[in-house]
Amino acid sequence: MVEEPDSLNALLDQFKKISGHKLLVHGGGLTATVISEKLGIETKMEEGRRITDAETLEVVTMVYGGLINKRIVAALQARGMNAVGLTGADLNLITAHKRPVKDIDYGFVGDVDDVNVSELRLLIEENVVPVVAPLTHDRTGQLLNTNADTIAAELATELSNFYKVFLFFCFEKKGVLLNPDDENSVIYDLNLTQFNEYKTEGIISAGMIPKLENGFRAKMKGVQEILITNPENISTGRGTRLI
Amino acid sequence: MVEEPDSLNALLDQFKKISGHKLLVHGGGLTATVISEKLGIETKMEEGRRITDAETLEVVTMVYGGLINKRIVAALQARGMNAVGLTGADLNLITAHKRPVKDIDYGFVGDVDDVNVSELRLLIEENVVPVVAPLTHDRTGQLLNTNADTIAAELATELSNFYKVFLFFCFEKKGVLLNPDDENSVIYDLNLTQFNEYKTEGIISAGMIPKLENGFRAKMKGVQEILITNPENISTGRGTRLI
Repeated sequence: MVEEPDSLNALLDQFKKISGHKLLVHGGGLTATVISEKLGIETKMEEGRRITDAETLEVVTMVYGGLINKRIVAALQARGMNAVGLTGADLNLITAHKRPVKDIDYGFVGDVDDVNVSELRLLIEENVVPVVAPLTHDRTGQLLNTNADTIAAELATELSNFYKVFLFFCFEKKGVLLNPDDENSVIYDLNLTQFNEYKTEGIISAGMIPKLENGFRAKMKGVQEILITNPENISTGRGTRLI
Repeated sequence: MVEEPDSLNALLDQFKKISGHKLLVHGGGLTATVISEKLGIETKMEEGRRITDAETLEVVTMVYGGLINKRIVAALQARGMNAVGLTGADLNLITAHKRPVKDIDYGFVGDVDDVNVSELRLLIEENVVPVVAPLTHDRTGQLLNTNADTIAAELATELSNFYKVFLFFCFEKKGVLLNPDDENSVIYDLNLTQFNEYKTEGIISAGMIPKLENGFRAKMKGVQEILITNPENISTGRGTRLI
């Protein structure tokens, strides 16, 4: 979504319409896979998560922290939004620890420990628009690859101590679908009980589960509203609302 | 210097010793050349400057803005310095225009137009340490590759409106050498007249000339002190001082 010029431009045009302070968290997995391939580095995924060995960490640091992040920043500046690109290492925004090895060794993947928004809030109050790449650090100099949806939920949760926060998870569909082949089967309101039922019944797809789990956790911790939708519906507010 | 773990660590240990507010500008050309080669992109240089076609711009955006910048940020965080990595696009820090084509088409290379430090100063006042990658933007969404020494001089000049600024150009030598083969032939004090003489006589090497020109320009515009030295002498203040 942020990786193709056309869809990025469409997303940022919609993003511009959001009133109030705003922050964007992005991914970049498709580009990371393409660049890895060009560099002769094999991409290994496990349950939708990237196994991040030392070489792959270099790639995601380049692609998420550099290529994608700075393209978005420049494109927001062109739209009159004063963006700043950050990773979790910048301003000590998000600390994490390397995921312990159990059945799978994810490599340099970080599970979030702490979110610090004190300097971020200063920037937000100046109408700066933070653009956050899905990387964290462990305070000993190690960067870690961290899921973008998790980062979005963690930042939203921490910021909800200071602001009324609306969290939008954007993807290519209009919302969570009852039937993945039917774009019109959007579940408009979803509560935790229903989510657990749909999950048990296998109705909600594997890729959506972490997004929704992150969403429900954020909701329970004080985020005002969580919407899962496509960029076109950011401004209409239509999509799957967690209730 | 910032591209090898050992020399980066040595540099940052010295950098930590500098008292007062501080800011670091880095390059990354060697790594950009290595990554370009791995990606099958030919590196073309002209008078020490990288010809930056669209593919090369992607590489330098990844390497300068991502890989090198975020490594430095994480390494500074590990040393207790609250770093933030920036390019000229972030916070609208440095705007530039694409260099006009005369004899040589440098491609996506930017010549600086304007430096805006208003948000940067807020961060500096909070003891944040900005780490700036040599990239700028043109306000229409275009990132541009810009010489790191120029960026350092431009930032120092603008910041000298608000602070007493010491500008250190760090490289592997102890200073500007009268004889490039003799490490002990450091010119300790250098004024503009001498510089022009040495330049005419071919005593000062081609690579040093832009650094010194940037330095003298910054000095004339109000930067308090300009020193050209190696990392070990940041704290001693020894090296070539522009007078």
